[in-house]
Amino acid sequence: MRILGVDPGLTRCGVGIIDANADRSVSLVSVTVLTTDKDLELPQRLLQLRSELAALIEEFKPERIAVERVFAQHNLRTVMGTAQASAVAFVEAAERGIPVDMHTPSEVKASVTGTGRANKVQVATMVGRLLTLPEGKLLPDATDALALAICNAWRGGAGTAPKGALTPAQQRWRDAERQAKKRG
Amino acid sequence: MRILGVDPGLTRCGVGIIDANADRSVSLVSVTVLTTDKDLELPQRLLQLRSELAALIEEFKPERIAVERVFAQHNLRTVMGTAQASAVAFVEAAERGIPVDMHTPSEVKASVTGTGRANKVQVATMVGRLLTLPEGKLLPDATDALALAICNAWRGGAGTAPKGALTPAQQRWRDAERQAKKRG
Repeated sequence: MRILGVDPGLTRCGVGIIDANADRSVSLVSVTVLTTDKDLELPQRLLQLRSELAALIEEFKPERIAVERVFAQHNLRTVMGTAQASAVAFVEAAERGIPVDMHTPSEVKASVTGTGRANKVQVATMVGRLLTLPEGKLLPDATDALALAICNAWRGGAGTAPKGALTPAQQRWRDAERQAKKRG
Repeated sequence: MRILGVDPGLTRCGVGIIDANADRSVSLVSVTVLTTDKDLELPQRLLQLRSELAALIEEFKPERIAVERVFAQHNLRTVMGTAQASAVAFVEAAERGIPVDMHTPSEVKASVTGTGRANKVQVATMVGRLLTLPEGKLLPDATDALALAICNAWRGGAGTAPKGALTPAQQRWRDAERQAKKRG
């Protein structure tokens, strides 16, 4: 299963492509950070982003696309750019019939590090380990895009509810954990 | 000069198309409110919006497109949908080389009513008068899209600074008005 992760942004848009294998291992296919020219007008920047993203989709033919779910941020301008960049990714995916999933930052962190409160360094370290990358080579946006793709590979995407992705034994374990927390 | 105004939205996207004549009169070409199916996933909704907007652009061949500039709103979910819908309009315009302008709601209100603090009813009334429409027929999103197109027609768009659009006599009048306000 080939998965393309998008950390959407207008100035820097991380794109990470991985192959998710049946044994739950993941391997790097490609990773890049797309940038658009700040001197261009917004419509031209979005068009540029679209062309570059479309080229990657055509080249690597992902079967699923995972996009970070955007939430409130301090800077509204950033939120707008992020939302607009994600719209470009959504339309490119939908046009080609590629299923899209959204994951929150904490889902992504929890998937690759085991905790939704992991910091950037932890996430980067785990992404590097899981994909057996050389250390200290990736830009943060690139790391986040790869982490998204890994999260999507493991959580199950394309409308698969997380609960459905658990085996009966895993569900019992989860239920037991919840009970323990309530008691604690 | 044919102008297409877009009041961007995911659930309801107003589109108003006008012809702006040399004598500053404006006439209605077409107006509609595009809707997308709430039951669809976000990528499919954006794709649907794109198809419908593209069809209108192909049919009416606007020379300029005016889009409402989105600002902070109370509901972040609404802002996101608005930003994503506007991204679709931007890309459709940029792809065809059609210049795009953005106008703030207060610019639009000021253009059609004379005050940036006009309410919805005032704006609707003036849009109806300027385009000689029968009363009480338009949805609010449709009215806003037409008001945007009229604003664009009168302020001058496509990179024309408002100042440059004034004749020397108009500039003197504006400067005199400002002086009067300072004194007041």
